[in-house]
Amino acid sequence: MEKKFLLTEKEIPTHWYNIVADMPNKPLPPLHPATKQPLGPDDLAPLFPMELIMQEVSSDRYVEIPEEVREAYKIWRPTPLIRAINLEKTLGTDCHIYYKYEGTSPSGSHKPNTAIPQAYYNKKQGVKRITTETGAGQWGTALSFACKHFGLECDVYMVRISYDQKPYRKSLMNTFGANVFPSPSERTNAGRIALGADPNTPGSLGLAISEAIEMAVGDEETKYSLGSVLNHVLLHQTIIGQEAEKQMEQAGEFPDVVIAPLGGGSNFAGLSFPFLKHKIAGKSLRAIAVEPASCPKLTRGKFMYDFGDAQGYTPLLPMYTLGHTFKPAAIHAGGLRYHGASVICSQLLKDGLIEAAAIQQLECFEAGVLFARTEGIVPAPEANHGIAQVIREVNRAKEEGVKKTILFNLCGHGFVDMAAYDDYFAGKLVNHSFTDEEVTSEIASLAALQP
Amino acid sequence: MEKKFLLTEKEIPTHWYNIVADMPNKPLPPLHPATKQPLGPDDLAPLFPMELIMQEVSSDRYVEIPEEVREAYKIWRPTPLIRAINLEKTLGTDCHIYYKYEGTSPSGSHKPNTAIPQAYYNKKQGVKRITTETGAGQWGTALSFACKHFGLECDVYMVRISYDQKPYRKSLMNTFGANVFPSPSERTNAGRIALGADPNTPGSLGLAISEAIEMAVGDEETKYSLGSVLNHVLLHQTIIGQEAEKQMEQAGEFPDVVIAPLGGGSNFAGLSFPFLKHKIAGKSLRAIAVEPASCPKLTRGKFMYDFGDAQGYTPLLPMYTLGHTFKPAAIHAGGLRYHGASVICSQLLKDGLIEAAAIQQLECFEAGVLFARTEGIVPAPEANHGIAQVIREVNRAKEEGVKKTILFNLCGHGFVDMAAYDDYFAGKLVNHSFTDEEVTSEIASLAALQP
Repeated sequence: MEKKFLLTEKEIPTHWYNIVADMPNKPLPPLHPATKQPLGPDDLAPLFPMELIMQEVSSDRYVEIPEEVREAYKIWRPTPLIRAINLEKTLGTDCHIYYKYEGTSPSGSHKPNTAIPQAYYNKKQGVKRITTETGAGQWGTALSFACKHFGLECDVYMVRISYDQKPYRKSLMNTFGANVFPSPSERTNAGRIALGADPNTPGSLGLAISEAIEMAVGDEETKYSLGSVLNHVLLHQTIIGQEAEKQMEQAGEFPDVVIAPLGGGSNFAGLSFPFLKHKIAGKSLRAIAVEPASCPKLTRGKFMYDFGDAQGYTPLLPMYTLGHTFKPAAIHAGGLRYHGASVICSQLLKDGLIEAAAIQQLECFEAGVLFARTEGIVPAPEANHGIAQVIREVNRAKEEGVKKTILFNLCGHGFVDMAAYDDYFAGKLVNHSFTDEEVTSEIASLAALQP
Repeated sequence: MEKKFLLTEKEIPTHWYNIVADMPNKPLPPLHPATKQPLGPDDLAPLFPMELIMQEVSSDRYVEIPEEVREAYKIWRPTPLIRAINLEKTLGTDCHIYYKYEGTSPSGSHKPNTAIPQAYYNKKQGVKRITTETGAGQWGTALSFACKHFGLECDVYMVRISYDQKPYRKSLMNTFGANVFPSPSERTNAGRIALGADPNTPGSLGLAISEAIEMAVGDEETKYSLGSVLNHVLLHQTIIGQEAEKQMEQAGEFPDVVIAPLGGGSNFAGLSFPFLKHKIAGKSLRAIAVEPASCPKLTRGKFMYDFGDAQGYTPLLPMYTLGHTFKPAAIHAGGLRYHGASVICSQLLKDGLIEAAAIQQLECFEAGVLFARTEGIVPAPEANHGIAQVIREVNRAKEEGVKKTILFNLCGHGFVDMAAYDDYFAGKLVNHSFTDEEVTSEIASLAALQP
């Protein structure tokens, strides 16, 4: 039985797919926090190169992938689609389980799919340096490699506690030639203020964003880059689903269910949007975004305008959110600890085109360990959320006496996250359930931000 | 330009290639240390299942790969052959550089190629548990996965200092379901004696081997497994070179030079033996085994009978060696810190069919960082030795005004070895040159072991 479905380099898609063109209800516009008026492209020009801004606001169905980007994609793409035959056997299911494996990239996850084009468009516009923030380090690693590839400098502001606790990620960024600063740093006003208030602060993603933005805004040769949430980031990730579509055809199947974890939304969007195109056109399909129960914006948050960062420096975005001051419980899937969901994913959920599920971390690690032992890939803790949902779907299919074809995004491997598995085996991980009051307390304060 | 050359699962080789059949001078037999007489298959029966012993002494040109092993190989095989286009550009060379990438396996290196068949043959013979030693942890990880796949228990004795310093490798083995014990342990006589002498001993590979062997010999349901050096291990690794041969044909080239690191010999053998078959038949080819200058058995050792382990518990093997009591300098490529070279590789070197080169670790890390930045894969420190030799060959080709086709084995990625890169960037790594007296001092004591 065939296990892997591969494409040639010639089959790397020539265009990204923009789901906005097919959405029955288009996403609401981002608003300027002061005026509450829709943002124009010029408002974003200090931060992003113009071609990325035009992609951010585009409603064209397809956006051509530049030749230089397709060449760079060849470094690791096309990625394999794999049938989880050994997992199927162990689960004793008639369901067919497929996964798209994005862990073969330079950083070990799907993140370079957008890092490469972002670096390319910056280079094309004459930018010299890109700043960004990173929490667990996946995004910083991807952008480090992309900047090195196109000859740009890369400054990464890494949340202090991750900088200290995850030294391997910092080493990877250094290996790819980036400068990595623990955040808060002495390099920015935001950083100096934070250090003044508490010299031992562990930092936060919100603060690191502030530092990266401040360094970009203050320097004409420097721009800023974000690894998820924004429309152009989701657009670039659709390379995943488009490849998977061709590979599922090779396998002679169309999925009944498509599953991916959701942190900001780019991982889920990347796999699911090219399949959702068919659902919008009438085909039967369930697309399930999986979030951690410790940060349940899709399942327990509200659809409202909110800031993209903890500090409130970004435009207001219409999204499912727990409030930008919400503190997710400490779990090991750092890439999913974000208070809001991308504007496009939020609109799709509101319109009932996608579903959401929230899962506790112990169930996720149990699923990840089973996957590693059967399929031979230790998944990143974020990816475990998708696997846990697959197992739920398999169990449900068994109860219902039906046979499903399930496709999920194995967005990255866990080689640099083994400390999380250590804690799991040592019994140090716990589930965390927020009370209704806890998940709504920060949302209440958003009332003043609404237009 | 095509960068990756892929095979389908149907093209996974059906047989392993046994170079012994084609060697002009056959390897000398291993000897019993007490009698100095050649060992028979029965002498090895307490340690290995009979089918592996028959492979160990086989001179058949091809050994069929069992269907169950080919199915398990599909979990990650065939592996890609990649043209290092970006590295070529950066080096400004007309040479064509190809690499076979073995880092997509469950453990991230070539080791599962032999772990899978070893576990299979043990299972087939009714064995319940396999014991082994591991230094840096690559081999232990591979065998852990293989045992889990075939439903065997796996006990890994991990050198204490690695156990403490490389916790991620231990976590990987646990994730694949193995029991990992720091060596020396209280479980064996050898361990208890060592702990009695020095409760704080960092352990050694030789001692870990003794513990693993002791646990296997004392229990009928338990066998022992080794990850390199032995003939059957090299045999299993020839899956690499056979795939690479087909992929080089796809690329329309035959290599002028084949390069791989050599620790015990299985990495080098795996890639080079199927190509050496053609050299023995008259085709032009250079095959270069690369060792660390800190453990220069091929370039500065002597061809003599010696023990395979530090304690002197194994049979005597005819090989290039620095003496089983030689202490390699502390370098980060733990997989290459072994005092001897496999019997077959040693005979080939003696007969001038292969070459050897020794490289210092700073040159290796410099090469590895350049590779990561151009090709997007951070190599394992062991693999860096091959890359450094590739760059030497490219420079030599430039001087000579010739164009070469170079193929090397990128035997594993470095995601779990980032501490080594940290030390490199921090300037903590040094080169180490042994004096002639230092490299010969331990060899002198081997005289008494010769037949």
